[in-house]
Amino acid sequence: MAALANERVAYFNGKIVPESDVLIPFRDRGFMAGDAVFDTARTVRHRIFKLREHIDRLYSSLRYIQVDPRLSPKEMTAITEEVVARNLHLIDADDDYWVSQRISRGSDSADSKAGTGMTPTVIVECRPLPLTQRARLFRDGIDVIVPAVRRTAPDMLSPRAKTHNYLNLVMGDLEAKAADPEAWAVLLDANGNLCEGTGSNVFVVRGGTVMTPRERYVLPGISRATVIELAREIGQPCIEADIDLYDAYTADEAFLTSTSLCLCPVRSVNGRHVGVDAIPGPVTKRLMDAFARLMDFDFVAQYKRRLNG
Amino acid sequence: MAALANERVAYFNGKIVPESDVLIPFRDRGFMAGDAVFDTARTVRHRIFKLREHIDRLYSSLRYIQVDPRLSPKEMTAITEEVVARNLHLIDADDDYWVSQRISRGSDSADSKAGTGMTPTVIVECRPLPLTQRARLFRDGIDVIVPAVRRTAPDMLSPRAKTHNYLNLVMGDLEAKAADPEAWAVLLDANGNLCEGTGSNVFVVRGGTVMTPRERYVLPGISRATVIELAREIGQPCIEADIDLYDAYTADEAFLTSTSLCLCPVRSVNGRHVGVDAIPGPVTKRLMDAFARLMDFDFVAQYKRRLNG
Amino acid sequence: MAALANERVAYFNGKIVPESDVLIPFRDRGFMAGDAVFDTARTVRHRIFKLREHIDRLYSSLRYIQVDPRLSPKEMTAITEEVVARNLHLIDADDDYWVSQRISRGSDSADSKAGTGMTPTVIVECRPLPLTQRARLFRDGIDVIVPAVRRTAPDMLSPRAKTHNYLNLVMGDLEAKAADPEAWAVLLDANGNLCEGTGSNVFVVRGGTVMTPRERYVLPGISRATVIELAREIGQPCIEADIDLYDAYTADEAFLTSTSLCLCPVRSVNGRHVGVDAIPGPVTKRLMDAFARLMDFDFVAQYKRRLNG
Amino acid sequence: MAALANERVAYFNGKIVPESDVLIPFRDRGFMAGDAVFDTARTVRHRIFKLREHIDRLYSSLRYIQVDPRLSPKEMTAITEEVVARNLHLIDADDDYWVSQRISRGSDSADSKAGTGMTPTVIVECRPLPLTQRARLFRDGIDVIVPAVRRTAPDMLSPRAKTHNYLNLVMGDLEAKAADPEAWAVLLDANGNLCEGTGSNVFVVRGGTVMTPRERYVLPGISRATVIELAREIGQPCIEADIDLYDAYTADEAFLTSTSLCLCPVRSVNGRHVGVDAIPGPVTKRLMDAFARLMDFDFVAQYKRRLNG
Amino acid sequence: MAALANERVAYFNGKIVPESDVLIPFRDRGFMAGDAVFDTARTVRHRIFKLREHIDRLYSSLRYIQVDPRLSPKEMTAITEEVVARNLHLIDADDDYWVSQRISRGSDSADSKAGTGMTPTVIVECRPLPLTQRARLFRDGIDVIVPAVRRTAPDMLSPRAKTHNYLNLVMGDLEAKAADPEAWAVLLDANGNLCEGTGSNVFVVRGGTVMTPRERYVLPGISRATVIELAREIGQPCIEADIDLYDAYTADEAFLTSTSLCLCPVRSVNGRHVGVDAIPGPVTKRLMDAFARLMDFDFVAQYKRRLNG
Amino acid sequence: MAALANERVAYFNGKIVPESDVLIPFRDRGFMAGDAVFDTARTVRHRIFKLREHIDRLYSSLRYIQVDPRLSPKEMTAITEEVVARNLHLIDADDDYWVSQRISRGSDSADSKAGTGMTPTVIVECRPLPLTQRARLFRDGIDVIVPAVRRTAPDMLSPRAKTHNYLNLVMGDLEAKAADPEAWAVLLDANGNLCEGTGSNVFVVRGGTVMTPRERYVLPGISRATVIELAREIGQPCIEADIDLYDAYTADEAFLTSTSLCLCPVRSVNGRHVGVDAIPGPVTKRLMDAFARLMDFDFVAQYKRRLNG
Repeated sequence: MAALANERVAYFNGKIVPESDVLIPFRDRGFMAGDAVFDTARTVRHRIFKLREHIDRLYSSLRYIQVDPRLSPKEMTAITEEVVARNLHLIDADDDYWVSQRISRGSDSADSKAGTGMTPTVIVECRPLPLTQRARLFRDGIDVIVPAVRRTAPDMLSPRAKTHNYLNLVMGDLEAKAADPEAWAVLLDANGNLCEGTGSNVFVVRGGTVMTPRERYVLPGISRATVIELAREIGQPCIEADIDLYDAYTADEAFLTSTSLCLCPVRSVNGRHVGVDAIPGPVTKRLMDAFARLMDFDFVAQYKRRLNG
Repeated sequence: MAALANERVAYFNGKIVPESDVLIPFRDRGFMAGDAVFDTARTVRHRIFKLREHIDRLYSSLRYIQVDPRLSPKEMTAITEEVVARNLHLIDADDDYWVSQRISRGSDSADSKAGTGMTPTVIVECRPLPLTQRARLFRDGIDVIVPAVRRTAPDMLSPRAKTHNYLNLVMGDLEAKAADPEAWAVLLDANGNLCEGTGSNVFVVRGGTVMTPRERYVLPGISRATVIELAREIGQPCIEADIDLYDAYTADEAFLTSTSLCLCPVRSVNGRHVGVDAIPGPVTKRLMDAFARLMDFDFVAQYKRRLNG
Repeated sequence: MAALANERVAYFNGKIVPESDVLIPFRDRGFMAGDAVFDTARTVRHRIFKLREHIDRLYSSLRYIQVDPRLSPKEMTAITEEVVARNLHLIDADDDYWVSQRISRGSDSADSKAGTGMTPTVIVECRPLPLTQRARLFRDGIDVIVPAVRRTAPDMLSPRAKTHNYLNLVMGDLEAKAADPEAWAVLLDANGNLCEGTGSNVFVVRGGTVMTPRERYVLPGISRATVIELAREIGQPCIEADIDLYDAYTADEAFLTSTSLCLCPVRSVNGRHVGVDAIPGPVTKRLMDAFARLMDFDFVAQYKRRLNG
Repeated sequence: MAALANERVAYFNGKIVPESDVLIPFRDRGFMAGDAVFDTARTVRHRIFKLREHIDRLYSSLRYIQVDPRLSPKEMTAITEEVVARNLHLIDADDDYWVSQRISRGSDSADSKAGTGMTPTVIVECRPLPLTQRARLFRDGIDVIVPAVRRTAPDMLSPRAKTHNYLNLVMGDLEAKAADPEAWAVLLDANGNLCEGTGSNVFVVRGGTVMTPRERYVLPGISRATVIELAREIGQPCIEADIDLYDAYTADEAFLTSTSLCLCPVRSVNGRHVGVDAIPGPVTKRLMDAFARLMDFDFVAQYKRRLNG
Repeated sequence: MAALANERVAYFNGKIVPESDVLIPFRDRGFMAGDAVFDTARTVRHRIFKLREHIDRLYSSLRYIQVDPRLSPKEMTAITEEVVARNLHLIDADDDYWVSQRISRGSDSADSKAGTGMTPTVIVECRPLPLTQRARLFRDGIDVIVPAVRRTAPDMLSPRAKTHNYLNLVMGDLEAKAADPEAWAVLLDANGNLCEGTGSNVFVVRGGTVMTPRERYVLPGISRATVIELAREIGQPCIEADIDLYDAYTADEAFLTSTSLCLCPVRSVNGRHVGVDAIPGPVTKRLMDAFARLMDFDFVAQYKRRLNG
Repeated sequence: MAALANERVAYFNGKIVPESDVLIPFRDRGFMAGDAVFDTARTVRHRIFKLREHIDRLYSSLRYIQVDPRLSPKEMTAITEEVVARNLHLIDADDDYWVSQRISRGSDSADSKAGTGMTPTVIVECRPLPLTQRARLFRDGIDVIVPAVRRTAPDMLSPRAKTHNYLNLVMGDLEAKAADPEAWAVLLDANGNLCEGTGSNVFVVRGGTVMTPRERYVLPGISRATVIELAREIGQPCIEADIDLYDAYTADEAFLTSTSLCLCPVRSVNGRHVGVDAIPGPVTKRLMDAFARLMDFDFVAQYKRRLNG
């Protein structure tokens, strides 16, 4: 099938094809069981940011679910860069892409319970960042709701692996969106500590210290790691810790990190204003600035330009 | 695309098509997030067994993840029967089908976190039962291994909903298969009680009582419910209870139920012989016989005929 | 101080006094530590309903926190009846009262940690039922929200004792009200099962069976016990069980019980409609009718008369 | 009402009044639900020690339960100082005061579940330290008993907020006092680690390191923070850690901190002598000395002077 | 070595020998690891009570730890009876014996971690019941203390197997005895429910119902089973349930069962009187009488005769 | 009894005797209840390595179970050295000994539940290291299996005390050996983190950091402490952390430490190869080398010399 002139292309099991040709047989375990992992980087001014770190995490996820992608990290990196390159002409200079690798265990035959011996399905694809939809968050801050559903515990399925099993997080989002369609869910872990939302890590600032949940209970976000590192560089105390609703309710500031957001302030948790200062608070602001310096790119401005678009 | 002469057909979003045409866009949330539910019945002599119960459970799963399939249970039933009917000519008289409905939330647009407002993807498909591969189990009994990974807790994602999020069970299977490629995994729940394996429920017989894990922690199997009902009818005490490895190690008999197996004896748990009697034990045998009478079909003979095929 | 003509009176440490004279020294442990228990019955057509059961439960709460009220159950009963009698002239014939006994451990001296040897503070007081404010609930059903905060576990402070330590429930209400000021919170217990809200017990109806959380995790409501007993009488299966969000989301009906509501239908849980039928559903309706018959009083009509007041 | 000549005064909702006029309407949620927070500092030679830290913690507690006291921290500080000043003439030069702020959510109207929109009740009051009653503890050490009841878990009600919900701690004290009326209870948290007693933090010394439970599970005591800081200053290793009965039973030394005690040695835990050295042990002694230097006041001598009084 | 004239004999690995010759090599895993199981019956008027049930339970314990005693249940029964018979001449007519089988995995060789292939050590021995020491308990009731240490959870080592690993219970006893040397410890399980003490099961009576902890968390005592059965026979409601301190503190009666005590009333729990009636309470008394009738022996009189001995 | 010429001797309650004379009365609580503690050091070229640390830990274990050995640490040290000295002539120059102190609470009298007042049984004994049996592990690496049974939780019986209650670990070994007779079990703790195996501590290396489970959940191995210290000395980051199966499956290297092994590489966990490098990996190798340097002894060579013996 010929690709439309403005259709994105993707890598699919060895070939670059139009996205509409990336079609998964329904017996693929990625569809039947969410038996797949992925990772998602973003471009910054059309160049992929921290791709190596994302590829490393992808291969950890693969090892965790014991799938061999039959591509080396180096090959995966090259494919990823090619997919982005082939799609850059489809976005404006001020837009950017998410770019994801997705590898499923492959197609199921009749009785292979644990799915050994299959040929993995490999997709590398990109998608424009939802800059316009999320622009408001940088002006107003994110409203966080903590749902009753708890994040899957690490001894059941480690949140550190980025898999296609997202229903636990979907259940949390359904709860939060029922209360406020604009809210973002951040779940508690099995011990009642704040852990993470769909694709986002959470940080709170209290008494001059930046705190984020310990890695065991969350996806170790690349943006999260970046913030921890930047904090060290700018002399801002920053620790991994058990954080709970007391911390959130008494915080001076809070923010979420994610690949797309980089770092975005939180306005409220469960309807309560976080802190008493402006959005973003001073510590958040310093870290946002440091993040922008690191990327040599004003990601906040990129978002905010969409506010009156 | 024209179906091959011997290719099965399936229902796919409103049409009956060859299975090879049931192709899922990779942005479908069923693929990206395992954000889908399913249910699977089997045919008995080419007629679907307890389809109403399976459809009921399917609609409970749909309500749980809040997806509206835009088909009534009655329509879903009719489609399911049609799919089987259209494929019966492809199997022998002594073979039978699994038949499954699969409904995903639909395709993801850029920023719709909880996925409201999507058009669900609906598939109804069938597949021959793996009678030959599993025939041995009815002669020898199943070797069960209890992995270290625990079953997802009900306050994270209820095991009672039959979803496409199977990685927790896959992790258990990987552990069990590493120890013995022929073994079946049965996991412990968050409290350390036996709960379930991939698609199977477990029963133990101790001191004349049949026991199976409480519904809260497992998929409420239709075969499981059938056994509980049959036990009542034949005067065999049968309870839902917290069952643990002490029960398994000191059991007189044990068996698994599943849609395909109906009821199949367990030979060992973690390498220890269950009971001292023959396979199947007397209570298991009585329940197997009752099951066969209910179906008016000797399912064990159907399996065992494959032993020397 | 002279009571206002229309002021209610209450029993306070041996005397009947105007309510405005029931003033607690701030060093009373009831104020300083919530170190007090209470119980609340209601009148039905101006007569106290099931007072004996409430007095029994009060004395269990007293034993649990080891406070001796220095009044026998019989004396407490007589006082309670007197307090109601003295206040009846202040309400209309179609209104009714809550009537509560409240006993604190007494006043703290400097260093008595566990508070032995104090003189308990005893209050018996009544208050008109909020019939008008809650009338809408009988027409529309209650919107339930399940907050993230979990109910205090029984090995910390038993929910079965009705104490003045309500902050755990207050935290749940704050979460629920932030999402919807009209919603009622029903909390999960430490195991992730639904347990109770502030002063209310929850029931769900699934597959023809009425289920309510097990007593260990909730206040054993008198209305709850009444419903369990009525169900038995009218042949409606009703069990105590572990109930979770799967049950709530897939329920056919749900309702809350409390002293004031008796039994009131639930419309939604976390924004999801419960069942597909009218409010109240058929099983709820039968139990409401049976409750009214038992009281020989149409409590629903009493509420609904306020709808157009 | 005129205050007795020797009666203490207190601040009560805007006025300084005799303590006997600080009377709480029984419908105040502080009485009905323990829906209130407080904080307690002490004077050292008639001057309030670390008042700013106590006020800060008070405002964190207020934020946690979402009560606005309608007084700024500065105003609260001034009131607190005034209350002490007005009462100093009532105690001897060698005595000192506890001084507490107590803020409840206010009085309940008929149907306001979560209690928004009420006028908070504010009390600031002082009370002489029980120096005589506790003098013995500085000579003999405290006998600690660990009760079976566990401390309320942070995801139910955070122990970090200092609230009027003390029944969980009261239950622990009742257990401990039943075994030994002189003993102090120190509870285990939900994970089985030592956490805290009524108003006290616990420290153990093992292998040269001072350890105290992590903040998430306890009230972050000001004396506790002082000890941690002093340890750093004098080069004594001191960490927050998970501490359990193994640590307590094999400890070289142990001590409690509280506002009144500052720092007082523990003699035994569950009937077992802690360490083999004198009371206090050498590390405890160094920290006590450092504490006294910081306050420029020999608090131990103040206690011990009462021994033969 | 020749036995003393008045020395008891025991069975030891195939022979009847004087007790002083039953000496265990220190490398026996029973000594090195507590890697052994046992069971203990008692005589009633010199005949072993319910020996079959004890032997059954012994063989369940053996299967659980996977040790084959190389003796059939029938042989074990005969040996047990012989051991008693050979020792009867050493006790008075009004005395009785405990008789125990003890089987360890055998002696450890250098590197056999899980101890397969060893020759088990088998001991059958008896010991006079401590009738005099415990006589007081039948007059006064038992004082129960609930220690802070929790009973080993079933997913770690099942309490249902009667093993030589008693340190968890020893730790509980040490706590209880430190508070009161005469008290008996009854532990909480991992969920905070009452479970069991060293060799004893606990029952509480509340509202006319007898309740005992569920089997999963305790040794399923033969006396416990006897009481459950007797209750059924005399029409006394009796259930297995989750029982906690609320139940104990508000109970009307409580009692312990054990092989030696049969059934003995509890006077207090954590220093609180259980119920308000005499020792034993009426329900306890009826069950004690029924127990005596079943044994055709007044076991209480046997104990009480020692009171003024 | 005269010792055989080649029989080892041991210390037994005050005397040095042939090992075959170290016979434990079966009523010793060490046999009946595993009510005993021990510690085990090894010789390095016939000299005891880190004996002081082992004696210290032994006395902590004794304090934890509240047994007084009636020997000072100094006396225990001298006895230990004597026992080794008396047995050295029985092994070759290239062999070495394990040497253990074992102290039980002593012999049980009829009714002494918590066993106060007994005379402890003290044994000091040695045994040749199983160098030949384990030589292969240094060539191939250890295959680790994580069983389903969880390690006893610290609030039940602290794993930090080295006691004779090993059945929990035995149950884990039975599971692992059933899957692979050569495998070593490493258990998960109650939180699902890796903790320890029978006598071994586990380390994983990820991203350049060496991690080992936190002390609260494991026996604080002397070899474990040595590795932590050596890592510090050679500049290798090394932390105590919560480690789970995600860490194990994605580790670059892993190793076990124990008194006999010192430090031995792990080849696989649950059938999955750890890392992709040779055995041992580079970090493991550096630590092994540092360990050998510290001991001034090539322990690996000592093992490997047995490979072709």
